[in-house]
Amino acid sequence: MNAKRVVALCGGVGGAKLVLGLAAVCEAGDLTVIVNTGDDFEHLGLHISPDLDTVLYTLAGVSDPERGWGRADETWNFMAALRELGGDGWFNLGDRDLAVHVERTRRMRAGETLSSIVADMARRLKVTARIVPMTDGAVRTIVHTTRGDLPFQEYFVRHACAPVITGVTFAGAATAQPTPAVMDALAREPIAAIVICPSNPYLSIDPIFAVPGIRAALQAATVPVVAVSPIIGGKAVKGPTAKIMTELGIATTSQAIAAHYSGLIDGIVIDEIDAADVNSISIPTAVTPTLMDSINDKRRLAHAVLDFTGCIASDSSIAPRMPGPSL
Amino acid sequence: MNAKRVVALCGGVGGAKLVLGLAAVCEAGDLTVIVNTGDDFEHLGLHISPDLDTVLYTLAGVSDPERGWGRADETWNFMAALRELGGDGWFNLGDRDLAVHVERTRRMRAGETLSSIVADMARRLKVTARIVPMTDGAVRTIVHTTRGDLPFQEYFVRHACAPVITGVTFAGAATAQPTPAVMDALAREPIAAIVICPSNPYLSIDPIFAVPGIRAALQAATVPVVAVSPIIGGKAVKGPTAKIMTELGIATTSQAIAAHYSGLIDGIVIDEIDAADVNSISIPTAVTPTLMDSINDKRRLAHAVLDFTGCIASDSSIAPRMPGPSL
Repeated sequence: MNAKRVVALCGGVGGAKLVLGLAAVCEAGDLTVIVNTGDDFEHLGLHISPDLDTVLYTLAGVSDPERGWGRADETWNFMAALRELGGDGWFNLGDRDLAVHVERTRRMRAGETLSSIVADMARRLKVTARIVPMTDGAVRTIVHTTRGDLPFQEYFVRHACAPVITGVTFAGAATAQPTPAVMDALAREPIAAIVICPSNPYLSIDPIFAVPGIRAALQAATVPVVAVSPIIGGKAVKGPTAKIMTELGIATTSQAIAAHYSGLIDGIVIDEIDAADVNSISIPTAVTPTLMDSINDKRRLAHAVLDFTGCIASDSSIAPRMPGPSL
Repeated sequence: MNAKRVVALCGGVGGAKLVLGLAAVCEAGDLTVIVNTGDDFEHLGLHISPDLDTVLYTLAGVSDPERGWGRADETWNFMAALRELGGDGWFNLGDRDLAVHVERTRRMRAGETLSSIVADMARRLKVTARIVPMTDGAVRTIVHTTRGDLPFQEYFVRHACAPVITGVTFAGAATAQPTPAVMDALAREPIAAIVICPSNPYLSIDPIFAVPGIRAALQAATVPVVAVSPIIGGKAVKGPTAKIMTELGIATTSQAIAAHYSGLIDGIVIDEIDAADVNSISIPTAVTPTLMDSINDKRRLAHAVLDFTGCIASDSSIAPRMPGPSL
């Protein structure tokens, strides 16, 4: 594999798994992760960035492997005391986790950009990948449901994704600017591949593309752009992706994922369970196990994804329907 | 003892011990505690009120008995994570304790007054005494030292009271207003006694008197005002009181404490170790053990203080030098 610089786009837990695999197979400093901040919100007076923190904790090796979010060896005494005081207890913040929120909020109020703070925290936690928020501005994912419009975390945490989705919009996106590091990562040579991680396309990846300039930069990039489908056998590994697709009247297939990213990606990686879908997908498709439990799974999938982008890059006579390299 | 309503003035740890004793001997709702907020400061973007919290935790029965500040059963994972991130680690905030700071800051930013927030938190923690900040405004104790001027917490915590004090001022005091609850407590009848707790006179009680109107209200009160000396045998039980007195050229005696409160108090309670000082103190003086280790010590001293105020109130022919009731 000759991959040098790799750019990944991702949301939270599902995407962060592949990011960890990519970090393991890339040279230090060669991976840039563009992270969704549409889930960010102000809570208890603190700026919370759930996806950024999941990526940060995952790459720093301090994330909780069971829970899927927050930090390992976490305690919950702040929350217990907060509830005693009648504070707002629906969003759990661990004691260790809280340090990021308090310190980030303090630095943002002092005028520092989110991207600068994230970069510094990543450095202090010895993360060699670049973690880049999609924007330093405020883009907020609004979930339109049959129960009304809900800010993302209200939908996702408070209502546990129960309301039926009718649409998703991104407040503030029209006037937002991508962080300089995003545009730099997408435009700077040499770059080997751009990978859309198996995050929720509607809630985690679309907000990134809603920031003016990012979609065009992806389209202008002269390297392969590949998505990894979050759908395995008609279901999502975790989270509401399949439920949302159903509610939006979209088939829960990797074909639908490929269609969703149409015009943006040069290829898609799907799970071997869905091998038969290859015939219905009109772009180069790689078939490989995509479930990531162990670090070996993550590393193996990362290798497979980068091998696939390598094939796409070298094969200028690529067929529109291609089963992908044998993996 | 016929005492009904009692008003106590106090700072942090030392004063809170007597406050706990007073709460134990007063009927529920009959004790009002006016608390110093000159130690308050903004740290990590949070509003911290060390003395208010010490009184709140003490009366709620959740304070740490060993450490003297903060909460019992505390954990320190927030601080550990904060230091990893390069955050400002000189002021320790426990995980449980942090809930008060975060929630109070959120409510203050939303426009609520400090006194309203404290009252609500006290109610939720089942405290029946009224805990009243001296002001809802910002009065900040500035310690002038041979190393320069230091905000209180810088002097007290960061420099561990090491710099030599040349004076103390209270920034913002000139334009501050006492909270309505302070003036109400001092002016409303029937009131049995006003007690100045054995807190540091220069750093914990003087800021209260620096708020315009409080000193005059005390002087106008028609009930006995009694101070409990923080000096025992030439030393303070805890904290820098004796060190500061020495640096300011004041003898470390209860006589000097009585002189400091001259014109404000009708009597003083001193420790039995200093019984001989009775002859050099020109106001009614009660002699009794003032060290408060156990809850029984606190309750006993509270009884003694209120008995003493009762004697002063009933004895209109009180001698200017009076050894006080036998205790």
